[in-house]
Amino acid sequence: LSQSHDDLSALLAAPPQPTRRACAPALEEQLYRVNPVLDHGFVRVIDYMGTDEAIVQAARVSYGAGTKQHTGDRGLIRYLMRHRHTSPFEMCAIKLHVKLPIFVARQWIRHRTASVNEVSARYSILEHEFYLPSPTHLAEQSSDNKQGRKEEAISAAQAAEVLALLERDARHTYATYEHLLNDDGSGDPADPARPQLARELARINLSLGMYTEWYWKIDLHNLLHFLSLRLHAHAQYEIRVYAEVIGQLVSAWVPLAWEAFEDYRLGGASFSKQELALLRALVERAGPEAGLGASGLGARERKEFRDKLGL
Amino acid sequence: LSQSHDDLSALLAAPPQPTRRACAPALEEQLYRVNPVLDHGFVRVIDYMGTDEAIVQAARVSYGAGTKQHTGDRGLIRYLMRHRHTSPFEMCAIKLHVKLPIFVARQWIRHRTASVNEVSARYSILEHEFYLPSPTHLAEQSSDNKQGRKEEAISAAQAAEVLALLERDARHTYATYEHLLNDDGSGDPADPARPQLARELARINLSLGMYTEWYWKIDLHNLLHFLSLRLHAHAQYEIRVYAEVIGQLVSAWVPLAWEAFEDYRLGGASFSKQELALLRALVERAGPEAGLGASGLGARERKEFRDKLGL
Amino acid sequence: LSQSHDDLSALLAAPPQPTRRACAPALEEQLYRVNPVLDHGFVRVIDYMGTDEAIVQAARVSYGAGTKQHTGDRGLIRYLMRHRHTSPFEMCAIKLHVKLPIFVARQWIRHRTASVNEVSARYSILEHEFYLPSPTHLAEQSSDNKQGRKEEAISAAQAAEVLALLERDARHTYATYEHLLNDDGSGDPADPARPQLARELARINLSLGMYTEWYWKIDLHNLLHFLSLRLHAHAQYEIRVYAEVIGQLVSAWVPLAWEAFEDYRLGGASFSKQELALLRALVERAGPEAGLGASGLGARERKEFRDKLGL
Amino acid sequence: LSQSHDDLSALLAAPPQPTRRACAPALEEQLYRVNPVLDHGFVRVIDYMGTDEAIVQAARVSYGAGTKQHTGDRGLIRYLMRHRHTSPFEMCAIKLHVKLPIFVARQWIRHRTASVNEVSARYSILEHEFYLPSPTHLAEQSSDNKQGRKEEAISAAQAAEVLALLERDARHTYATYEHLLNDDGSGDPADPARPQLARELARINLSLGMYTEWYWKIDLHNLLHFLSLRLHAHAQYEIRVYAEVIGQLVSAWVPLAWEAFEDYRLGGASFSKQELALLRALVERAGPEAGLGASGLGARERKEFRDKLGL
Repeated sequence: LSQSHDDLSALLAAPPQPTRRACAPALEEQLYRVNPVLDHGFVRVIDYMGTDEAIVQAARVSYGAGTKQHTGDRGLIRYLMRHRHTSPFEMCAIKLHVKLPIFVARQWIRHRTASVNEVSARYSILEHEFYLPSPTHLAEQSSDNKQGRKEEAISAAQAAEVLALLERDARHTYATYEHLLNDDGSGDPADPARPQLARELARINLSLGMYTEWYWKIDLHNLLHFLSLRLHAHAQYEIRVYAEVIGQLVSAWVPLAWEAFEDYRLGGASFSKQELALLRALVERAGPEAGLGASGLGARERKEFRDKLGL
Repeated sequence: LSQSHDDLSALLAAPPQPTRRACAPALEEQLYRVNPVLDHGFVRVIDYMGTDEAIVQAARVSYGAGTKQHTGDRGLIRYLMRHRHTSPFEMCAIKLHVKLPIFVARQWIRHRTASVNEVSARYSILEHEFYLPSPTHLAEQSSDNKQGRKEEAISAAQAAEVLALLERDARHTYATYEHLLNDDGSGDPADPARPQLARELARINLSLGMYTEWYWKIDLHNLLHFLSLRLHAHAQYEIRVYAEVIGQLVSAWVPLAWEAFEDYRLGGASFSKQELALLRALVERAGPEAGLGASGLGARERKEFRDKLGL
Repeated sequence: LSQSHDDLSALLAAPPQPTRRACAPALEEQLYRVNPVLDHGFVRVIDYMGTDEAIVQAARVSYGAGTKQHTGDRGLIRYLMRHRHTSPFEMCAIKLHVKLPIFVARQWIRHRTASVNEVSARYSILEHEFYLPSPTHLAEQSSDNKQGRKEEAISAAQAAEVLALLERDARHTYATYEHLLNDDGSGDPADPARPQLARELARINLSLGMYTEWYWKIDLHNLLHFLSLRLHAHAQYEIRVYAEVIGQLVSAWVPLAWEAFEDYRLGGASFSKQELALLRALVERAGPEAGLGASGLGARERKEFRDKLGL
Repeated sequence: LSQSHDDLSALLAAPPQPTRRACAPALEEQLYRVNPVLDHGFVRVIDYMGTDEAIVQAARVSYGAGTKQHTGDRGLIRYLMRHRHTSPFEMCAIKLHVKLPIFVARQWIRHRTASVNEVSARYSILEHEFYLPSPTHLAEQSSDNKQGRKEEAISAAQAAEVLALLERDARHTYATYEHLLNDDGSGDPADPARPQLARELARINLSLGMYTEWYWKIDLHNLLHFLSLRLHAHAQYEIRVYAEVIGQLVSAWVPLAWEAFEDYRLGGASFSKQELALLRALVERAGPEAGLGASGLGARERKEFRDKLGL
């Protein structure tokens, strides 16, 4: 893949070193490994800091005696997630190497609380790699979701036509890019009679489907926020698949935080004041007690449930 | 009050000037006015930027055709709030002048996405103002909320004893501060035989109940996040009263955003995956249809309600 | 121009309203006006907050007695700029409406401490506007600046060939985009026999030279940092011209801060420990005193100059 | 020391584990160790992420071919530091456990780009530890630096009087704090006839010299900015000593970045446009060439030196 990739493969082969830092063994297994995404993209973990224990440790410093009522790390992490006590999750961080189409990169970068080093097409010549959707992901504009596509794909024949057009234009614009750069691969002109247009200018001709790559470092709190938005059904498919791969990496890294995130954020929902009034009326009609008994909620969460509904 | 206060009073008396910027007439009324909080504190608006219309304008740029289905500004602002499309709310900002006890300032400053200019006790001599709670706000440590106090106050006699101790110590430590500064008010020594201890050292003796003041500028999105935490019943009373005053100012400034915030954030609640399963079972038992009809929810919100419960 | 543009023209025509906020009359003149940049881009001011006086006001709160030795607002602002006391500059903010090519937007967005609402090509159909450099700005890759272009342009004949290629590809890829969207302008298919590909997919085919637009709000401190990088000779020409227009707007808005920025940041330079040793030796050989007398530096700055050189 | 301290001592004794992450052996030696600061404070490293190599790796991704002209990691890191290419330094992070007086914490927290978990006196009872300066650090208000103290200490007899007052008040206010808490150490009242005042209220009586502690996580770029301000001669002594200890830890962690920071930031200086004109005149009078030859500057830096002076 990329030049930096080769160096990282050497890291993959290097023997482990001793450390006294907290380690996440399941994430160590993943370090430097390429997780393919889309047709040419990938995500891989370059470094990480902290574990579930780091979250607990930070919370216990802050809340001291207040954390003693939680039996064990799992209960405390669930409490923090439930009540949006977010600062302990900032104590963990991860650094990823990501290869992704430029239009995905443009969505991604809207999350500002992260550090980024991206390949610069002012310095470097981008490789000839562009995103072509698979036929099953080509769909018409959705009529009820103004920003998205329909669930059913267009027909195979229609898809073939679309892909032929996308591929044709991507090849043409890249050929023009190479023509303008006029570089024989060693820095010398391929055609000495023509100029070597500055890279920062030639790249204007490239399309949003071209791949770029970057290092991206983010803390766990902000990563979970990124994932909650980008795993959402309304997120564009092409960024959602990156979020899904990152979610798997997070579940290996901090399994207790991930479980709590799935239960309280991904799988949860918010209700307005008006909706709560409606729910209260409905629940009162049904009689909450039998249901609560079989719900599997602990005593503390049962009380919070009743409080939220004003029961 | 403070020296800066005097200058600001001149602003209060100055005639209005013409501007072509968006204006919030109800907040103009509030500009520079002192809103008292606690025994010596206050909040006042020094400047602001944007109105409800600025939120709508920013959203319409982003979502274009996607915003047309919302009838009017109110519907769009409610949609943005409900779906946590937060960036349009960042387009408004407010600048406050706040006088507050140091222990409140220490909680307040944990909100990092704001700009602050605070009086420095390295440069200036702090005035002799310290916070004494009113007797009705003195209470014992709560047994179920590990960070808070009980709802019922201690007795009047007990309160009188507590206040006498707090006042005595505040007076003693301030007297020592003045003794160490040894400043006659003009910069010269009050007692030429003694040194004038550096201000940055003498202030070490002051207590957390002393008042400080600062200019605090924050965008509306981050301000609403601040308010959602600091208006919460578990927030300490002494910061909650500041949040309440600021909430009133926000409701004058951006009334549509404030109404949506009250309905979807302050008055709302989140439920976990497990709670949603329980709610679904209870609601199915009650039969949701009759309730939905009388709920006052619009068609779109009714659909979202059913979707969230998986009905 | 854009749809939002039309609404803003109405604002341009609306009569001024009275405000008691601080006003910058020279910037009021600029409000909503289009300042053209490149071939289709622009910058215009939508809103602002604060003036030179707001910087001074915030500094006087922080530094109290420490600010009295500065004669007047200008001296204080220059002191703050010189010593990188940056927080008072955060008390001012500006909101711009910018139309810019996507490759410029990608550089711009690396400045994270700002608020952005950008046109979304998932919701909206982008207009047929792409950047074509003027012939005099087409140049070869620089040999000494690895990220830039040479100063001298390529020949007129060479430029004509480059521009023909860039224009041809931009027209082709946009035509394919329109073909894939298959929208007759009213939302219905132009060709009922073909699908209307989702907008989030069709836009993949667009090039980095296409124009986008956004609202961008930033405080003055972070704006000056942006300008110091983007006005630099090594910044790409196509973003530098935006920075130049913004710089003119800032000089109208906060003239004292802008003058200090020009003197201490834009026109200044940093020297390393080793360079300082060299400078000291050279200056000692020349004898600094005569030069200092004629330098126009005030007494305070003269002392700082000598201190920095260890004289 | 603190309760968390005891848990961390267990970590100190635990055997190292294997990791494939980048390691900084000299910082591994420091992990969890207490570095005493002031009379009761400390700094210790809890975790870190990245090394000098991580900075280089991130820069090479961004600048690609542009980094090849730098011979080796050291040259590249110096180039990045010299030209304020800051994002590669964000790829490293460190997490510290710090015990510090509250008035120092109040200065420290002004650096917003960091993550913090602090002991909460709403949950926990603070220990009886307060800062008493050593006699040699007690000094009068400086007359030329409006925020600082003189260099020479007050006399031993004067210092003894000051310290006696500070200690007396700290003991009194803490005794009142304990009286108001009325806690026998097990949570029960020491005096059953009196209330147990809520912790969030009783702490108001504590002074700014009391010690608090926190976990503080920050990336290397922002840490170096913190250090450049807090190692400055005008920073208050009591925070400067923390910065000095952290500086030693950073030099063990990323020695190449630290060396560059010392040469270009700590040991360097900035000059204004006016000062540059003066320097140019002085240097021209001295004749720069002989000096440049003996300066030890490389060819590239020699060119930059001449460029900055306009020679």
